[in-house]
Amino acid sequence: MADCIPDPGYAKKIAGQSRNAAQQLPSLTGSQKNAWLEQVAALLLERQDSILQANQLDLIAGENSGLSPAMLDRLRLCQQRIESLAAAVRQICALPDPVGEVISGGRRPNGLQVNRVRVPLGVVFFIFESRPNVTIDAAALCIKSGNSVILRGGREALHSNLALGEILQEALRTEGLPEHAVQLVEFPDRALVGEFLSCGDLIDVTIPRGGKSLIERVCREATMPVIRHYDGICHVFIDESADVQMAKEIVVNSKCQRPGVCNAAESLLIHRAALDRVWPEVAVALQHHKVELRCCQDSLALAPGAVAATAEDYSTEHLALILNVKVVDSLEQAVQHIREFGSAHTDAIVTQSFAAAEAFETLVDSSAVVVNASTRFNDGGELGLGAEIGISTDRFHARGPCGLQELTTYKYVLRGTGQTRG
Amino acid sequence: MADCIPDPGYAKKIAGQSRNAAQQLPSLTGSQKNAWLEQVAALLLERQDSILQANQLDLIAGENSGLSPAMLDRLRLCQQRIESLAAAVRQICALPDPVGEVISGGRRPNGLQVNRVRVPLGVVFFIFESRPNVTIDAAALCIKSGNSVILRGGREALHSNLALGEILQEALRTEGLPEHAVQLVEFPDRALVGEFLSCGDLIDVTIPRGGKSLIERVCREATMPVIRHYDGICHVFIDESADVQMAKEIVVNSKCQRPGVCNAAESLLIHRAALDRVWPEVAVALQHHKVELRCCQDSLALAPGAVAATAEDYSTEHLALILNVKVVDSLEQAVQHIREFGSAHTDAIVTQSFAAAEAFETLVDSSAVVVNASTRFNDGGELGLGAEIGISTDRFHARGPCGLQELTTYKYVLRGTGQTRG
Repeated sequence: MADCIPDPGYAKKIAGQSRNAAQQLPSLTGSQKNAWLEQVAALLLERQDSILQANQLDLIAGENSGLSPAMLDRLRLCQQRIESLAAAVRQICALPDPVGEVISGGRRPNGLQVNRVRVPLGVVFFIFESRPNVTIDAAALCIKSGNSVILRGGREALHSNLALGEILQEALRTEGLPEHAVQLVEFPDRALVGEFLSCGDLIDVTIPRGGKSLIERVCREATMPVIRHYDGICHVFIDESADVQMAKEIVVNSKCQRPGVCNAAESLLIHRAALDRVWPEVAVALQHHKVELRCCQDSLALAPGAVAATAEDYSTEHLALILNVKVVDSLEQAVQHIREFGSAHTDAIVTQSFAAAEAFETLVDSSAVVVNASTRFNDGGELGLGAEIGISTDRFHARGPCGLQELTTYKYVLRGTGQTRG
Repeated sequence: MADCIPDPGYAKKIAGQSRNAAQQLPSLTGSQKNAWLEQVAALLLERQDSILQANQLDLIAGENSGLSPAMLDRLRLCQQRIESLAAAVRQICALPDPVGEVISGGRRPNGLQVNRVRVPLGVVFFIFESRPNVTIDAAALCIKSGNSVILRGGREALHSNLALGEILQEALRTEGLPEHAVQLVEFPDRALVGEFLSCGDLIDVTIPRGGKSLIERVCREATMPVIRHYDGICHVFIDESADVQMAKEIVVNSKCQRPGVCNAAESLLIHRAALDRVWPEVAVALQHHKVELRCCQDSLALAPGAVAATAEDYSTEHLALILNVKVVDSLEQAVQHIREFGSAHTDAIVTQSFAAAEAFETLVDSSAVVVNASTRFNDGGELGLGAEIGISTDRFHARGPCGLQELTTYKYVLRGTGQTRG
């Protein structure tokens, strides 16, 4: 199927079906949506064998086409991963229904009751790469928030996604939900993505998750809003008054706990007044964790084995055990560096000073500003949002982790007794 | 000045200055912003003569270039209008500061305090047409919400806007606010707008207020998010159980109280079961207010003096004393008509039935869904938002009236005691 070319009008047809489904979804009760989620979780466990068989086809094709071991690992499903997937769906099921929430409300002087009520965004077009677990997460989040979703996964995971898509759709039929509430794009054709991106009248938002070039292309071509998910060039700033032990633990955790993700630290800034007291010990701890240190002149002198940073390092998302280090003269200089080189994703300060914490919180404008904790906490699960469909680096509509709420909008509901305007 | 051509790089320079100002604005206290607003209000009253002189130049030029009487009226300032402007600024002053509001917050199981805190969007590029009062409203809303703003008004109002812009900037200097927090584009050149729209790295949002072709052009060219403000094709649906008197008052008010605005009704839908009982009386009341009725066959028969509607009427924003009328067989058919012909702006039902009100509220997905009140209440002031910078017909980020909150985004502030991720 992957190599067929779809009929002209395929994208428009799929998007139109999705729009029709989206008109029915806001009327569903939370119980109906939860029944679907429970059914998906049950089918995932029941159909493990056929999912794994389909995944095997992708893995063989991936090996033959020379995918890296890391890519193959992202692609691979196994019993444990399928069990985690089912558990994640049940966690989403346990979250409160966002649709119908009264965000704010009250009575106007003329007696008119005005409520701002949460409603679904509508139709979500979700573009993602090789991890098949994302297919299930995204569908679960979209349906729970009352949106219909068009899933366009990567070519590498096509067989796995088709098997998972079949489960999602079977559960729609079993539970009597609109049959086109979840649709999978069966043709991993790049031109076809462009056709979907031109359907601005049928699709309410596109969420691309993948490399920078994919996201740039989507932003360029999309005729509907896009939730972007760009680089995380995250900083830890060790302030003058930082506790050495705390600084060490936070820097090591921010850099090393999972270096390949967007909320891992890429740069360390150190207040000059803390340099001698804190830096040597932090440097040793980082090197103990096999981190390559790319240092400015002043920090280099105190870290045997470190190398000199280049100008580009400070604006590079290494996604590896590499850390840029720079000494600054003040908190203001740290803030200035973060504004210049950061990506407004996640930035942390380690400090014992109340005033420094307050200043950093106010002056740094990132999706998460962290005081005395690891940058790794900027994550939907860790912040209490439940699962996330991505982490937005936009300021508009959704910032940081996108969970159920970020997949909604609102409408005003006005209830009167015949009020007219004078 | 209007006929000079700006230096190349003018838009980028202005946008860069605005970005710098935007970095300083979040640190201002509410009192500092309010002092600026008070100063603006005071200067408006103090400088009435010079404002009126500048306005006179625009009015003379407008008459010479053949502006319609309606356009000239929109352009005209007078003592009373300037006093209203100053009063509007003081009303914005009295609103709570949105910046720093903790939207939600709590402590995570690991002790981490997670707050979602409201912050400004950043740099607003605001494009508007001939009404000079909008200049003051927009600047006041942007500064109060911590944003810097680039104001690009219409050519017709250039002298008035320059006089008002001088007041805005003098107040910035007097109160020690960043000098580029409010900037006025002094060249009403269309190509220049395109240069601003290409500054997606410096401008956070563009808000165009004006005709459809302006908004379409902005959406096509903008490299940043846009808050759109399209048509209002608003409906009133008279349900089977509607009270005749209430129906009459609501329909007349929705259509006639101010026919030229986006939340005025354009179409009336009548449940067939209420036709004989309600329609003749409503029709007479509308005709008494000089409304031209464009009717379907069934409603035409009961309204002497009405004319037959054409197919296009139902999707036309008349903005005049013209009302389309159509009989429907059920609430569902009314909803279907609204979905097909409406613009998801403002739609109202008149009903005595609890079940019908609930169904209408759920099934109609417009920025405002109104039960037993006039469509004219979908307005920032009427809904309690204070002033508005526009009414969004988008679903994304901001829906309906855009006040102070809609000019903000949020960041997560995490406060810990050394937490790391396991």
